[in-house]
Amino acid sequence: MAQPTADAILAHILTGSRVATDLGIRVLATGPGFVRLGMTVAPHLLNGVGTCHGGYLFTLGDCAGAFACLTHNRRAVTHSAQIAYLEPALAGQELVAEGSELARRKRTGVYAVRIMQDDRVVATMTAICAIIDEPVLPDNN
Amino acid sequence: MAQPTADAILAHILTGSRVATDLGIRVLATGPGFVRLGMTVAPHLLNGVGTCHGGYLFTLGDCAGAFACLTHNRRAVTHSAQIAYLEPALAGQELVAEGSELARRKRTGVYAVRIMQDDRVVATMTAICAIIDEPVLPDNN
Amino acid sequence: MAQPTADAILAHILTGSRVATDLGIRVLATGPGFVRLGMTVAPHLLNGVGTCHGGYLFTLGDCAGAFACLTHNRRAVTHSAQIAYLEPALAGQELVAEGSELARRKRTGVYAVRIMQDDRVVATMTAICAIIDEPVLPDNN
Amino acid sequence: MAQPTADAILAHILTGSRVATDLGIRVLATGPGFVRLGMTVAPHLLNGVGTCHGGYLFTLGDCAGAFACLTHNRRAVTHSAQIAYLEPALAGQELVAEGSELARRKRTGVYAVRIMQDDRVVATMTAICAIIDEPVLPDNN
Repeated sequence: MAQPTADAILAHILTGSRVATDLGIRVLATGPGFVRLGMTVAPHLLNGVGTCHGGYLFTLGDCAGAFACLTHNRRAVTHSAQIAYLEPALAGQELVAEGSELARRKRTGVYAVRIMQDDRVVATMTAICAIIDEPVLPDNN
Repeated sequence: MAQPTADAILAHILTGSRVATDLGIRVLATGPGFVRLGMTVAPHLLNGVGTCHGGYLFTLGDCAGAFACLTHNRRAVTHSAQIAYLEPALAGQELVAEGSELARRKRTGVYAVRIMQDDRVVATMTAICAIIDEPVLPDNN
Repeated sequence: MAQPTADAILAHILTGSRVATDLGIRVLATGPGFVRLGMTVAPHLLNGVGTCHGGYLFTLGDCAGAFACLTHNRRAVTHSAQIAYLEPALAGQELVAEGSELARRKRTGVYAVRIMQDDRVVATMTAICAIIDEPVLPDNN
Repeated sequence: MAQPTADAILAHILTGSRVATDLGIRVLATGPGFVRLGMTVAPHLLNGVGTCHGGYLFTLGDCAGAFACLTHNRRAVTHSAQIAYLEPALAGQELVAEGSELARRKRTGVYAVRIMQDDRVVATMTAICAIIDEPVLPDNN
Protein backbone atom coordinates (compact mmCIF):
# COMPACT_ATOMS: atom_id res chain seq x y z
CA MET A 1 0.00 0.00 0.00
CA ALA A 2 1.41 3.36 -1.06
CA GLN A 3 2.25 6.34 1.16
CA PRO A 4 -0.48 8.97 1.55
CA THR A 5 -0.51 11.31 -1.46
CA ALA A 6 0.33 15.00 -1.21
CA ASP A 7 -3.29 15.73 -2.14
CA ALA A 8 -4.62 13.64 0.74
CA ILE A 9 -2.17 15.12 3.23
CA LEU A 10 -2.99 18.71 2.29
CA ALA A 11 -6.75 18.06 2.24
CA HIS A 12 -6.36 16.85 5.82
CA ILE A 13 -4.25 19.87 6.80
CA LEU A 14 -6.63 22.35 5.19
CA THR A 15 -9.63 20.83 6.96
CA GLY A 16 -7.88 21.32 10.29
CA SER A 17 -6.83 24.93 9.60
CA ARG A 18 -9.53 27.42 10.49
CA VAL A 19 -7.23 30.28 9.49
CA ALA A 20 -6.70 28.90 5.97
CA THR A 21 -10.38 28.11 5.45
CA ASP A 22 -11.45 31.51 6.83
CA LEU A 23 -9.18 33.12 4.23
CA GLY A 24 -10.59 30.95 1.47
CA ILE A 25 -7.23 29.35 0.72
CA ARG A 26 -7.54 26.51 -1.81
CA VAL A 27 -5.05 23.88 -2.93
CA LEU A 28 -4.68 24.15 -6.72
CA ALA A 29 -1.82 21.70 -7.31
CA THR A 30 0.58 19.57 -5.31
CA GLY A 31 3.64 17.41 -5.75
CA PRO A 32 6.58 16.25 -3.63
CA GLY A 33 7.95 19.41 -2.00
CA PHE A 34 5.60 21.59 -4.02
CA VAL A 35 2.23 23.28 -3.68
CA ARG A 36 0.22 25.90 -5.55
CA LEU A 37 -2.44 27.70 -3.51
CA GLY A 38 -5.18 30.15 -4.49
CA MET A 39 -6.84 32.94 -2.48
CA THR A 40 -9.11 35.80 -3.50
CA VAL A 41 -8.40 39.26 -2.10
CA ALA A 42 -11.70 39.68 -0.21
CA PRO A 43 -12.79 43.04 1.29
CA HIS A 44 -11.78 42.12 4.85
CA LEU A 45 -8.20 41.51 3.69
CA LEU A 46 -7.64 45.07 2.49
CA ASN A 47 -5.37 47.64 4.10
CA GLY A 48 -6.07 51.35 4.42
CA VAL A 49 -5.19 52.07 0.79
CA GLY A 50 -7.43 49.38 -0.65
CA THR A 51 -4.91 46.66 -1.54
CA CYS A 52 -4.23 43.34 0.17
CA HIS A 53 -2.73 43.78 3.66
CA GLY A 54 0.84 42.53 3.86
CA GLY A 55 -0.07 40.33 6.81
CA TYR A 56 -2.47 38.31 4.67
CA LEU A 57 0.04 38.03 1.82
CA PHE A 58 2.46 36.66 4.41
CA THR A 59 -0.15 34.24 5.78
CA LEU A 60 -0.88 32.91 2.30
CA GLY A 61 2.84 32.57 1.57
CA ASP A 62 3.50 30.96 4.94
CA CYS A 63 0.85 28.34 4.11
CA ALA A 64 2.52 27.76 0.75
CA GLY A 65 5.90 27.15 2.37
CA ALA A 66 4.58 24.96 5.17
CA PHE A 67 2.24 22.98 2.90
CA ALA A 68 5.08 22.29 0.45
CA CYS A 69 7.03 20.93 3.41
CA LEU A 70 4.09 18.81 4.63
CA THR A 71 3.74 17.01 1.29
CA HIS A 72 6.44 14.63 2.59
CA ASN A 73 4.01 13.50 5.32
CA ARG A 74 6.10 14.72 8.20
CA ARG A 75 4.77 17.32 10.59
CA ALA A 76 6.46 20.71 10.43
CA VAL A 77 6.21 24.26 11.72
CA THR A 78 7.64 27.46 10.28
CA HIS A 79 10.75 28.38 12.22
CA SER A 80 11.59 31.63 10.46
CA ALA A 81 10.58 33.40 7.28
CA GLN A 82 11.42 36.43 5.20
CA ILE A 83 9.15 38.31 2.79
CA ALA A 84 9.79 41.00 0.17
CA TYR A 85 6.85 43.02 -1.10
CA LEU A 86 7.14 44.03 -4.74
CA GLU A 87 3.77 45.29 -5.97
CA PRO A 88 0.29 45.89 -4.58
CA ALA A 89 -2.11 42.92 -4.68
CA LEU A 90 -5.37 44.28 -6.06
CA ALA A 91 -8.76 43.92 -4.39
CA GLY A 92 -11.20 41.32 -5.63
CA GLN A 93 -8.63 39.49 -7.69
CA GLU A 94 -7.11 36.04 -7.36
CA LEU A 95 -3.71 35.42 -5.79
CA VAL A 96 -1.65 32.34 -6.56
CA ALA A 97 1.17 31.28 -4.23
CA GLU A 98 3.66 28.60 -5.17
CA GLY A 99 5.88 26.97 -2.57
CA SER A 100 8.81 24.88 -3.76
CA GLU A 101 11.57 23.10 -1.90
CA LEU A 102 15.06 24.56 -2.04
CA ALA A 103 16.61 22.04 0.34
CA ARG A 104 15.48 19.44 2.86
CA ARG A 105 17.26 17.74 5.75
CA LYS A 106 15.96 15.43 8.47
CA ARG A 107 14.97 18.32 10.72
CA THR A 108 14.99 21.39 8.44
CA GLY A 109 13.44 22.34 5.11
CA VAL A 110 13.85 25.57 3.13
CA TYR A 111 11.09 26.72 0.79
CA ALA A 112 10.92 29.48 -1.82
CA VAL A 113 7.51 31.06 -2.28
CA ARG A 114 6.28 33.33 -5.05
CA ILE A 115 2.95 35.12 -4.72
CA MET A 116 1.47 36.17 -8.04
CA GLN A 117 -1.54 38.03 -9.38
CA ASP A 118 -1.98 37.31 -13.07
CA ASP A 119 1.59 37.40 -14.31
CA ARG A 120 2.84 39.89 -11.75
CA VAL A 121 4.96 38.69 -8.82
CA VAL A 122 3.59 40.70 -5.89
CA ALA A 123 5.78 39.16 -3.19
CA THR A 124 8.52 36.59 -2.66
CA MET A 125 9.26 34.65 0.51
CA THR A 126 11.73 32.22 1.95
CA ALA A 127 10.47 30.01 4.75
CA ILE A 128 12.55 27.72 6.96
CA CYS A 129 10.54 24.90 8.48
CA ALA A 130 11.40 22.77 11.49
CA ILE A 131 10.47 19.17 10.67
CA ILE A 132 9.08 16.89 13.38
CA ASP A 133 9.53 13.17 12.78
CA GLU A 134 5.84 12.26 13.06
CA PRO A 135 3.48 11.47 10.20
CA VAL A 136 0.59 13.78 9.25
CA LEU A 137 -1.43 10.79 8.01
CA PRO A 138 -0.51 7.22 8.98
CA ASP A 139 2.50 5.93 7.07
CA ASN A 140 1.92 2.89 4.87
CA ASN A 141 4.80 0.58 4.16
CA MET B 1 1.43 74.92 16.69
CA ALA B 2 3.10 71.59 17.31
CA GLN B 3 3.38 68.61 14.95
CA PRO B 4 0.72 65.92 15.29
CA THR B 5 1.52 63.59 18.20
CA ALA B 6 2.36 59.92 17.72
CA ASP B 7 -0.87 59.12 19.57
CA ALA B 8 -2.97 61.17 17.16
CA ILE B 9 -1.23 59.73 14.10
CA LEU B 10 -1.69 56.12 15.21
CA ALA B 11 -5.30 56.69 16.26
CA HIS B 12 -5.91 57.90 12.70
CA ILE B 13 -4.06 54.92 11.19
CA LEU B 14 -5.88 52.39 13.36
CA THR B 15 -9.27 53.83 12.45
CA GLY B 16 -8.46 53.37 8.78
CA SER B 17 -7.17 49.81 9.16
CA ARG B 18 -9.95 47.24 9.01
CA VAL B 19 -7.41 44.46 9.35
CA ALA B 20 -6.00 45.85 12.61
CA THR B 21 -9.43 46.56 14.08
CA ASP B 22 -10.75 43.12 13.04
CA LEU B 23 -7.84 41.58 14.93
CA GLY B 24 -8.52 43.72 17.99
CA ILE B 25 -5.12 45.39 17.82
CA ARG B 26 -4.82 48.24 20.35
CA VAL B 27 -2.18 50.93 20.78
CA LEU B 28 -0.82 50.68 24.33
CA ALA B 29 2.02 53.20 24.16
CA THR B 30 3.78 55.38 21.59
CA GLY B 31 6.80 57.61 21.21
CA PRO B 32 9.04 58.82 18.39
CA GLY B 33 10.01 55.69 16.45
CA PHE B 34 8.32 53.47 19.02
CA VAL B 35 5.02 51.70 19.59
CA ARG B 36 3.63 49.04 21.91
CA LEU B 37 0.58 47.17 20.64
CA GLY B 38 -1.74 44.65 22.30
CA MET B 39 -3.82 41.83 20.79
CA THR B 40 -5.67 38.92 22.37
CA VAL B 41 -5.28 35.46 20.81
CA ALA B 42 -8.94 34.97 19.85
CA PRO B 43 -10.31 31.58 18.69
CA HIS B 44 -10.30 32.50 14.98
CA LEU B 45 -6.55 33.22 15.16
CA LEU B 46 -5.62 29.66 16.16
CA ASN B 47 -3.79 27.15 14.00
CA GLY B 48 -4.47 23.42 13.87
CA VAL B 49 -2.64 22.74 17.13
CA GLY B 50 -4.48 25.38 19.11
CA THR B 51 -1.88 28.16 19.32
CA CYS B 52 -1.76 31.49 17.50
CA HIS B 53 -1.22 31.07 13.75
CA GLY B 54 2.14 32.40 12.62
CA GLY B 55 0.42 34.57 10.02
CA TYR B 56 -1.36 36.54 12.72
CA LEU B 57 1.79 36.88 14.81
CA PHE B 58 3.42 38.30 11.69
CA THR B 59 0.49 40.65 11.06
CA LEU B 60 0.67 41.97 14.61
CA GLY B 61 4.43 42.41 14.33
CA ASP B 62 4.15 44.02 10.91
CA CYS B 63 1.76 46.57 12.41
CA ALA B 64 4.24 47.21 15.24
CA GLY B 65 7.06 47.89 12.77
CA ALA B 66 4.99 50.04 10.42
CA PHE B 67 3.29 51.97 13.22
CA ALA B 68 6.66 52.74 14.85
CA CYS B 69 7.73 54.14 11.47
CA LEU B 70 4.52 56.18 11.07
CA THR B 71 5.03 57.99 14.39
CA HIS B 72 7.23 60.42 12.44
CA ASN B 73 4.14 61.48 10.45
CA ARG B 74 5.42 60.31 7.11
CA ARG B 75 3.56 57.66 5.17
CA ALA B 76 5.31 54.31 4.87
CA VAL B 77 4.83 50.76 3.70
CA THR B 78 6.66 47.59 4.69
CA HIS B 79 9.17 46.73 1.99
CA SER B 80 10.51 43.52 3.46
CA ALA B 81 10.42 41.73 6.79
CA GLN B 82 11.85 38.73 8.56
CA ILE B 83 10.34 36.81 11.47
CA ALA B 84 11.70 34.14 13.83
CA TYR B 85 9.24 32.07 15.82
CA LEU B 86 10.51 31.07 19.25
CA GLU B 87 7.61 29.75 21.32
CA PRO B 88 3.90 29.06 20.89
CA ALA B 89 1.55 31.96 21.63
CA LEU B 90 -1.21 30.54 23.81
CA ALA B 91 -4.93 30.81 23.10
CA GLY B 92 -7.00 33.37 24.95
CA GLN B 93 -4.02 35.26 26.26
CA GLU B 94 -2.73 38.73 25.56
CA LEU B 95 0.13 39.43 23.15
CA VAL B 96 2.24 42.57 23.35
CA ALA B 97 4.32 43.68 20.37
CA GLU B 98 6.91 46.42 20.62
CA GLY B 99 8.33 48.09 17.54
CA SER B 100 11.42 50.25 17.91
CA GLU B 101 13.55 52.10 15.41
CA LEU B 102 17.00 50.71 14.63
CA ALA B 103 17.80 53.26 11.92
CA ARG B 104 15.99 55.82 9.79
CA ARG B 105 16.90 57.55 6.54
CA LYS B 106 14.88 59.81 4.26
CA ARG B 107 13.40 56.90 2.36
CA THR B 108 14.10 53.84 4.55
CA GLY B 109 13.49 52.86 8.15
CA VAL B 110 14.50 49.65 9.95
CA TYR B 111 12.48 48.45 12.92
CA ALA B 112 13.06 45.69 15.48
CA VAL B 113 9.93 44.04 16.82
CA ARG B 114 9.51 41.75 19.82
CA ILE B 115 6.27 39.88 20.37
CA MET B 116 5.74 38.80 23.95
CA GLN B 117 3.23 36.88 26.02
CA ASP B 118 3.75 37.59 29.71
CA ASP B 119 7.52 37.60 29.96
CA ARG B 120 8.11 35.13 27.17
CA VAL B 121 9.37 36.37 23.78
CA VAL B 122 7.32 34.31 21.30
CA ALA B 123 8.68 35.90 18.12
CA THR B 124 11.11 38.53 16.90
CA MET B 125 10.97 40.48 13.65
CA THR B 126 12.91 42.96 11.63
CA ALA B 127 10.90 45.14 9.26
CA ILE B 128 12.27 47.46 6.59
CA CYS B 129 9.86 50.22 5.66
CA ALA B 130 9.84 52.37 2.54
CA ILE B 131 9.09 55.95 3.58
CA ILE B 132 6.98 58.19 1.35
CA ASP B 133 7.48 61.91 1.82
CA GLU B 134 3.84 62.73 2.52
CA PRO B 135 2.30 63.48 5.91
CA VAL B 136 -0.18 61.11 7.57
CA LEU B 137 -1.87 64.05 9.31
CA PRO B 138 -1.32 67.64 8.15
CA ASP B 139 2.06 69.01 9.20
CA ASN B 140 1.99 72.04 11.48
CA ASN B 141 4.92 74.39 11.39
CA MET C 1 24.91 46.02 -32.73
CA ALA C 2 23.76 43.85 -29.85
CA GLN C 3 23.67 44.72 -26.15
CA PRO C 4 26.71 43.64 -24.10
CA THR C 5 26.48 39.96 -23.21
CA ALA C 6 26.11 38.71 -19.64
CA ASP C 7 29.57 37.17 -20.01
CA ALA C 8 31.15 40.48 -20.97
CA ILE C 9 29.35 42.36 -18.19
CA LEU C 10 30.40 39.90 -15.50
CA ALA C 11 33.98 39.71 -16.76
CA HIS C 12 34.11 43.49 -16.34
CA ILE C 13 32.55 43.32 -12.86
CA LEU C 14 34.88 40.55 -11.70
CA THR C 15 37.96 42.43 -12.88
CA GLY C 16 36.91 45.41 -10.80
CA SER C 17 36.16 43.39 -7.66
CA ARG C 18 39.24 42.83 -5.52
CA VAL C 19 37.14 40.98 -2.96
CA ALA C 20 35.83 38.46 -5.52
CA THR C 21 39.24 37.92 -7.09
CA ASP C 22 40.94 37.58 -3.67
CA LEU C 23 38.44 34.84 -2.86
CA GLY C 24 39.10 33.10 -6.19
CA ILE C 25 35.49 33.50 -7.31
CA ARG C 26 35.02 32.41 -10.93
CA VAL C 27 32.09 32.79 -13.31
CA LEU C 28 31.09 29.30 -14.53
CA ALA C 29 27.91 30.13 -16.47
CA THR C 30 25.66 33.11 -17.13
CA GLY C 31 22.35 33.99 -18.72
CA PRO C 32 19.72 36.72 -18.39
CA GLY C 33 19.03 36.99 -14.64
CA PHE C 34 21.22 33.98 -13.93
CA VAL C 35 24.77 33.18 -12.87
CA ARG C 36 26.70 30.17 -11.61
CA LEU C 37 29.86 30.94 -9.64
CA GLY C 38 32.64 28.70 -8.32
CA MET C 39 34.93 29.15 -5.30
CA THR C 40 37.30 26.76 -3.54
CA VAL C 41 37.24 26.63 0.27
CA ALA C 42 40.84 27.77 0.82
CA PRO C 43 42.55 27.58 4.24
CA HIS C 44 42.11 31.28 5.03
CA LEU C 45 38.33 30.91 4.64
CA LEU C 46 37.98 28.37 7.46
CA ASN C 47 36.31 28.98 10.81
CA GLY C 48 37.48 27.62 14.15
CA VAL C 49 36.06 24.14 13.50
CA GLY C 50 37.70 23.76 10.09
CA THR C 51 34.76 24.40 7.75
CA CYS C 52 34.04 27.42 5.57
CA HIS C 53 33.22 30.53 7.63
CA GLY C 54 29.63 31.66 7.21
CA GLY C 55 30.79 35.13 6.26
CA TYR C 56 32.53 33.78 3.16
CA LEU C 57 29.55 31.63 2.21
CA PHE C 58 27.48 34.80 2.45
CA THR C 59 30.00 36.76 0.36
CA LEU C 60 29.95 34.12 -2.36
CA GLY C 61 26.15 34.04 -2.31
CA ASP C 62 25.92 37.83 -2.28
CA CYS C 63 28.07 37.90 -5.43
CA ALA C 64 25.77 35.30 -7.03
CA GLY C 65 22.69 37.41 -6.32
CA ALA C 66 24.23 40.70 -7.39
CA PHE C 67 25.89 39.23 -10.49
CA ALA C 68 22.59 37.66 -11.60
CA CYS C 69 21.05 41.11 -11.28
CA LEU C 70 23.90 42.77 -13.21
CA THR C 71 23.45 40.50 -16.24
CA HIS C 72 20.77 42.99 -17.38
CA ASN C 73 23.51 45.64 -17.72
CA ARG C 74 22.11 47.96 -15.09
CA ARG C 75 24.13 48.84 -12.03
CA ALA C 76 22.85 47.44 -8.77
CA VAL C 77 23.70 47.06 -5.10
CA THR C 78 22.42 44.58 -2.53
CA HIS C 79 19.82 46.29 -0.38
CA SER C 80 19.05 43.42 1.96
CA ALA C 81 19.69 39.69 2.11
CA GLN C 82 18.84 36.63 4.15
CA ILE C 83 20.84 33.41 4.46
CA ALA C 84 20.06 30.00 5.93
CA TYR C 85 22.94 27.67 6.73
CA LEU C 86 22.12 23.99 6.23
CA GLU C 87 25.34 21.99 6.26
CA PRO C 88 29.05 22.58 6.74
CA ALA C 89 31.05 23.48 3.63
CA LEU C 90 34.15 21.30 3.70
CA ALA C 91 37.71 22.54 3.46
CA GLY C 92 39.59 22.25 0.19
CA GLN C 93 36.51 21.48 -1.83
CA GLU C 94 34.70 23.41 -4.51
CA LEU C 95 31.57 25.47 -3.83
CA VAL C 96 29.09 26.33 -6.57
CA ALA C 97 26.62 29.19 -6.09
CA GLU C 98 23.72 29.77 -8.44
CA GLY C 99 21.81 33.04 -8.45
CA SER C 100 18.50 33.20 -10.31
CA GLU C 101 15.93 35.93 -10.67
CA LEU C 102 12.65 35.56 -8.79
CA ALA C 103 11.27 38.96 -9.81
CA ARG C 104 12.52 42.20 -11.34
CA ARG C 105 11.10 45.73 -11.40
CA LYS C 106 12.60 48.99 -12.60
CA ARG C 107 14.28 49.68 -9.28
CA THR C 108 14.21 46.33 -7.44
CA GLY C 109 15.26 42.76 -8.19
CA VAL C 110 14.87 39.66 -6.01
CA TYR C 111 17.28 36.76 -6.41
CA ALA C 112 17.30 33.23 -5.02
CA VAL C 113 20.73 31.75 -4.38
CA ARG C 114 21.71 28.15 -3.67
CA ILE C 115 25.21 27.32 -2.52
CA MET C 116 26.19 23.71 -3.17
CA GLN C 117 29.10 21.39 -2.55
CA ASP C 118 28.81 18.33 -4.77
CA ASP C 119 25.11 17.58 -4.56
CA ARG C 120 24.62 18.96 -1.07
CA VAL C 121 22.94 22.34 -0.61
CA VAL C 122 25.01 23.97 2.14
CA ALA C 123 23.17 27.31 2.24
CA THR C 124 20.30 29.17 0.61
CA MET C 125 19.93 32.93 0.27
CA THR C 126 17.47 35.53 -0.89
CA ALA C 127 18.97 38.86 -1.98
CA ILE C 128 17.06 42.03 -2.77
CA CYS C 129 18.98 44.37 -5.06
CA ALA C 130 18.42 48.08 -5.61
CA ILE C 131 18.78 48.76 -9.33
CA ILE C 132 20.35 52.00 -10.55
CA ASP C 133 19.40 53.08 -14.04
CA GLU C 134 22.95 53.32 -15.39
CA PRO C 135 24.65 50.80 -17.68
CA VAL C 136 27.57 48.67 -16.49
CA LEU C 137 29.00 48.57 -20.03
CA PRO C 138 27.86 51.06 -22.69
CA ASP C 139 24.42 50.23 -24.09
CA ASN C 140 24.26 49.47 -27.79
CA ASN C 141 21.06 50.15 -29.64
CA MET D 1 34.94 29.52 41.60
CA ALA D 2 33.06 31.69 39.14
CA GLN D 3 32.07 30.86 35.57
CA PRO D 4 34.44 32.00 32.81
CA THR D 5 33.91 35.68 32.02
CA ALA D 6 32.59 36.90 28.68
CA ASP D 7 35.99 38.53 28.13
CA ALA D 8 37.83 35.25 28.63
CA ILE D 9 35.41 33.32 26.42
CA LEU D 10 35.66 35.79 23.55
CA ALA D 11 39.44 36.07 23.84
CA HIS D 12 39.54 32.30 23.39
CA ILE D 13 37.12 32.41 20.44
CA LEU D 14 39.00 35.23 18.71
CA THR D 15 42.32 33.41 19.06
CA GLY D 16 40.83 30.41 17.29
CA SER D 17 39.23 32.41 14.48
CA ARG D 18 41.63 33.03 11.61
CA VAL D 19 38.89 34.84 9.69
CA ALA D 20 38.24 37.32 12.50
CA THR D 21 41.93 37.94 13.13
CA ASP D 22 42.67 38.30 9.39
CA LEU D 23 39.98 41.00 9.26
CA GLY D 24 41.44 42.75 12.31
CA ILE D 25 38.27 42.28 14.34
CA ARG D 26 38.73 43.39 17.96
CA VAL D 27 36.55 42.93 21.03
CA LEU D 28 35.81 46.40 22.47
CA ALA D 29 33.27 45.51 25.16
CA THR D 30 31.36 42.48 26.41
CA GLY D 31 28.59 41.53 28.79
CA PRO D 32 26.03 38.74 29.16
CA GLY D 33 24.40 38.43 25.73
CA PHE D 34 26.25 41.49 24.46
CA VAL D 35 29.38 42.36 22.52
CA ARG D 36 30.84 45.43 20.81
CA LEU D 37 33.40 44.72 18.07
CA GLY D 38 35.68 47.01 16.08
CA MET D 39 37.11 46.61 12.55
CA THR D 40 38.89 49.06 10.26
CA VAL D 41 37.83 49.17 6.59
CA ALA D 42 41.19 48.11 5.12
CA PRO D 43 41.95 48.32 1.37
CA HIS D 44 41.39 44.61 0.72
CA LEU D 45 37.83 44.90 2.07
CA LEU D 46 36.69 47.41 -0.55
CA ASN D 47 34.23 46.76 -3.34
CA GLY D 48 34.46 48.14 -6.88
CA VAL D 49 33.18 51.58 -5.86
CA GLY D 50 35.63 52.02 -3.01
CA THR D 51 33.43 51.32 0.02
CA CYS D 52 33.37 48.29 2.31
CA HIS D 53 32.12 45.15 0.52
CA GLY D 54 28.78 43.95 1.86
CA GLY D 55 30.22 40.51 2.47
CA TYR D 56 32.69 41.90 5.00
CA LEU D 57 30.01 43.99 6.71
CA PHE D 58 28.03 40.77 7.01
CA THR D 59 31.04 38.87 8.36
CA LEU D 60 31.65 41.53 11.01
CA GLY D 61 27.96 41.51 11.95
CA ASP D 62 27.82 37.72 11.98
CA CYS D 63 30.72 37.71 14.45
CA ALA D 64 28.86 40.27 16.60
CA GLY D 65 25.74 38.09 16.72
CA ALA D 66 27.59 34.83 17.34
CA PHE D 67 29.97 36.33 19.90
CA ALA D 68 27.04 37.85 21.84
CA CYS D 69 25.57 34.36 21.93
CA LEU D 70 28.85 32.77 23.03
CA THR D 71 29.16 35.04 26.09
CA HIS D 72 26.94 32.50 27.88
CA ASN D 73 29.72 29.92 27.50
CA ARG D 74 27.73 27.55 25.32
CA ARG D 75 28.92 26.70 21.83
CA ALA D 76 26.77 28.07 19.02
CA VAL D 77 26.64 28.46 15.26
CA THR D 78 24.67 30.90 13.12
CA HIS D 79 21.64 29.13 11.73
CA SER D 80 20.22 31.97 9.66
CA ALA D 81 20.71 35.71 9.37
CA GLN D 82 19.28 38.73 7.64
CA ILE D 83 21.07 41.99 6.81
CA ALA D 84 19.84 45.39 5.60
CA TYR D 85 22.37 47.78 4.09
CA LEU D 86 21.63 51.43 4.81
CA GLU D 87 24.68 53.52 3.93
CA PRO D 88 28.15 53.00 2.49
CA ALA D 89 30.91 52.17 4.97
CA LEU D 90 33.82 54.41 4.10
CA ALA D 91 37.36 53.24 3.40
CA GLY D 92 40.01 53.58 6.07
CA GLN D 93 37.55 54.29 8.83
CA GLU D 94 36.54 52.34 11.89
CA LEU D 95 33.41 50.20 12.04
CA VAL D 96 31.74 49.30 15.32
CA ALA D 97 29.30 46.38 15.49
CA GLU D 98 27.13 45.75 18.51
CA GLY D 99 25.37 42.44 19.03
CA SER D 100 22.66 42.21 21.68
CA GLU D 101 20.34 39.41 22.70
CA LEU D 102 16.67 39.69 21.75
CA ALA D 103 15.69 36.27 23.08
CA ARG D 104 17.38 33.07 24.22
CA ARG D 105 16.09 29.52 24.64
CA LYS D 106 17.94 26.28 25.41
CA ARG D 107 18.71 25.63 21.76
CA THR D 108 18.09 28.97 20.02
CA GLY D 109 19.20 32.56 20.47
CA VAL D 110 18.19 35.64 18.47
CA TYR D 111 20.55 38.60 18.23
CA ALA D 112 20.12 42.13 16.89
CA VAL D 113 23.23 43.69 15.38
CA ARG D 114 23.91 47.30 14.46
CA ILE D 115 26.98 48.21 12.44
CA MET D 116 28.01 51.84 12.80
CA GLN D 117 30.60 54.22 11.45
CA ASP D 118 30.83 57.29 13.68
CA ASP D 119 27.19 57.94 14.45
CA ARG D 120 25.83 56.54 11.21
CA VAL D 121 24.16 53.12 11.19
CA VAL D 122 25.48 51.53 7.99
CA ALA D 123 23.76 48.16 8.37
CA THR D 124 21.45 46.23 10.68
CA MET D 125 21.26 42.47 11.09
CA THR D 126 19.26 39.83 12.85
CA ALA D 127 21.06 36.53 13.50
CA ILE D 128 19.50 33.32 14.75
CA CYS D 129 22.00 31.02 16.45
CA ALA D 130 21.70 27.31 17.13
CA ILE D 131 23.04 26.65 20.62
CA ILE D 132 24.95 23.46 21.38
CA ASP D 133 24.97 22.35 25.01
CA GLU D 134 28.75 22.22 25.38
CA PRO D 135 30.93 24.77 27.13
CA VAL D 136 33.40 26.98 25.23
CA LEU D 137 35.69 27.12 28.28
CA PRO D 138 35.36 24.61 31.13
CA ASP D 139 32.38 25.35 33.39
CA ASN D 140 33.17 26.10 37.01
CA ASN D 141 30.55 25.31 39.59
